[in-house]
Amino acid sequence: MTLFDPPATSARIKLVVAYDGSDFHGFARQRDQRTIAGDLTAAIERVLRHDVDITCAGRTDAGVHAWGQVVSFDAPTTVDLVRLQSSLNSMLNPAIVVRSAEIAAAGFDARHDAQWRAYRYSIVNRAVADPFRARSAWWVEHPLDLHRLRLAADVFVGEHDFASFCRRGPEGSTTVRTVLESRWVDEGDGCLRYEIRAHAFCWQMVRSIVGTLVEAGLGRRKPGELTSTLAARDRARAGQVAPAHGLCLWEVGY
Amino acid sequence: MTLFDPPATSARIKLVVAYDGSDFHGFARQRDQRTIAGDLTAAIERVLRHDVDITCAGRTDAGVHAWGQVVSFDAPTTVDLVRLQSSLNSMLNPAIVVRSAEIAAAGFDARHDAQWRAYRYSIVNRAVADPFRARSAWWVEHPLDLHRLRLAADVFVGEHDFASFCRRGPEGSTTVRTVLESRWVDEGDGCLRYEIRAHAFCWQMVRSIVGTLVEAGLGRRKPGELTSTLAARDRARAGQVAPAHGLCLWEVGY
Repeated sequence: MTLFDPPATSARIKLVVAYDGSDFHGFARQRDQRTIAGDLTAAIERVLRHDVDITCAGRTDAGVHAWGQVVSFDAPTTVDLVRLQSSLNSMLNPAIVVRSAEIAAAGFDARHDAQWRAYRYSIVNRAVADPFRARSAWWVEHPLDLHRLRLAADVFVGEHDFASFCRRGPEGSTTVRTVLESRWVDEGDGCLRYEIRAHAFCWQMVRSIVGTLVEAGLGRRKPGELTSTLAARDRARAGQVAPAHGLCLWEVGY
Repeated sequence: MTLFDPPATSARIKLVVAYDGSDFHGFARQRDQRTIAGDLTAAIERVLRHDVDITCAGRTDAGVHAWGQVVSFDAPTTVDLVRLQSSLNSMLNPAIVVRSAEIAAAGFDARHDAQWRAYRYSIVNRAVADPFRARSAWWVEHPLDLHRLRLAADVFVGEHDFASFCRRGPEGSTTVRTVLESRWVDEGDGCLRYEIRAHAFCWQMVRSIVGTLVEAGLGRRKPGELTSTLAARDRARAGQVAPAHGLCLWEVGY
């Protein structure tokens, strides 16, 4: 629920939005910067001809992509959803696509009602980079050991304090999170994909986990060592944060 | 062979180069425009510390991509190929990647020695576009009939005068070409790929063929009608030229 209930004549709209975040300064609106929320809000307001305040399931950072970002906002009950979707898609840059538009339950909130978020992180693990994946996958030149990556990924499943893998949030906020899934998928031809699903994530948690997993996969850390890295609750113990462009908000569950 | 034989101390180098052509004004060098040849030549000259004159297998237009473009030029016989490749790749924008570097036979010419060129054209055929394919595939919204596409594609195999499917070249130049393969591959999930292989192509021939095939696939032309379109040798009879960004120079055979 937002602070102000929508007027009785409003419908709560739920959009599923995909975007190539390469050329945007993240999701959240910023003055003088091109953002996903900025472009999306401007397009919605142009179609509806009134101001809207959009809420999203996960505020992605600059360069991070989404396949299943969820956005909610209010529109008149008379809104034609098919036309809304096609108008938005013809107005938006091809880097942003509204995959679906539907009427949600009254009071639906894309952020607070989310039960889980699933992210995917793509890696091209070949001696030579792939120019067609340069915007959407991290190129790791040296060979990764998939068995080690998988052993290391198992460490994160369950409820843990992820302080070692989070940039600090507001003072006093918890860094305890429950990870439901953490696994590597071998796509073949040197393409690896890390999938992680949790109720919620701390800031830069996925990229910090991936950076540390890759160090284990390169043989620079023992997979078993990650248990103590997690237990240490110390940011300095984790690996480098993996680059933003490999990350994609894949799906949100309600 | 180039006009001037390389000096005895030179080796003919063959590079296989992949590039995402989205942000370039085509392959060929142009004053004040960013081109693949421009970036590549500058990088090679910086590594070798002397001027080079590069030759390519196929001059791709603005926005067209390559996976297997072949480039030849001369370098000192002392050149370290592994270092040349890694230096070029660390210097070049991630949109251009040198996939391999080798010493070719004396007099090897990437353009004149090519026996065949293979192109691929990618289409996303879904009601809603895919932002991650926006730079590398043509989004066709209305459903394409794969059976019709395949019937139509068969028409082009063999030696034909492709005047209906070519922008005119220099006066008196022939538009007769031999197509070795012309077929559609269903990649699943609405992704279709057209593959065409020929000794050589006329200017915009592949995009013109794809544009016409898509009209057949949408039911706007009968597949059988393409035989007379080809026989007419009249540019006005073909369909629209398909957008550049779906096209990729896939492989060159020697």
